[in-house]
Amino acid sequence: MAGKVEVPKPTRPDGLWADDFSVGQTFRSGEQEITAEAITEFATRFDPQPFHVDADASIGTFFDRLVGSGWHTAAETMRLLVDALPIATGIVGAGGEIGWPTATLPGDRVHVEGVIDDIIWSRSRPDRAILVVSHQTVNQTGEVRQRTTARLIAWKRPRA
Amino acid sequence: MAGKVEVPKPTRPDGLWADDFSVGQTFRSGEQEITAEAITEFATRFDPQPFHVDADASIGTFFDRLVGSGWHTAAETMRLLVDALPIATGIVGAGGEIGWPTATLPGDRVHVEGVIDDIIWSRSRPDRAILVVSHQTVNQTGEVRQRTTARLIAWKRPRA
Repeated sequence: MAGKVEVPKPTRPDGLWADDFSVGQTFRSGEQEITAEAITEFATRFDPQPFHVDADASIGTFFDRLVGSGWHTAAETMRLLVDALPIATGIVGAGGEIGWPTATLPGDRVHVEGVIDDIIWSRSRPDRAILVVSHQTVNQTGEVRQRTTARLIAWKRPRA
Repeated sequence: MAGKVEVPKPTRPDGLWADDFSVGQTFRSGEQEITAEAITEFATRFDPQPFHVDADASIGTFFDRLVGSGWHTAAETMRLLVDALPIATGIVGAGGEIGWPTATLPGDRVHVEGVIDDIIWSRSRPDRAILVVSHQTVNQTGEVRQRTTARLIAWKRPRA
């Protein structure tokens, strides 16, 4: 991932630096309702398949009802993470793994719960680290809609 | 991934079934321009960080300019795939790996190019398979904005 060599300007001056995190630390986001309208709006633009845009046309297909696009679930997850994981230099992802054990349904109220799995300091650039973060996106009855493991870039707190 | 046990109704009656694919088969999508307006619209809703929503505020941050959210790149990639990978029962992803070697820039014209890496037939349900598909999202000068390996569910062509 291209970017500045020096420590970037914080996007959240009161946020957390790599050395403020600890392995095993958990976090939990607020809640977001996913409406049928939000599902079809996202899917019309980015994933226009019958089971994401048209409840009637979805009958008989794999999902047999209107369900959210996995990429919509991913986007809503990111929105919740932006508030729940206040990294000083922003949430900058190099990549990760994503899985959708079940599809998001209209009316789901989802939140994100996660844990810092690992903090890997760079050998060549000792002021930066990769935070390995696992999180799941869960609805109001505990059904897991998404599992994610992300590698996020973070910096050591600069000396004052 | 929950879903129907019998063969689902096709979402594309003229689409491809699992046994129509072969390992090593490649595909290439059409092109989509990613404008600054599209970047900030997506990010305002789903990834409201300064480097995704405000060119002025992005200066000095990690990216040091306005760049697209990785999840926006993922969503645009899905939109291109829906046209480029006409699986009869739809593109239904169980999960996969995603990486963003560089960030999408305003004005990028991206396409998706991919290959069928593997076709794994289910032992317990011989009418279904997992297609393992690797694809990359590439701009007009060949810069790779996203690398993805996806596990997609597909069915054997039903007997007439």
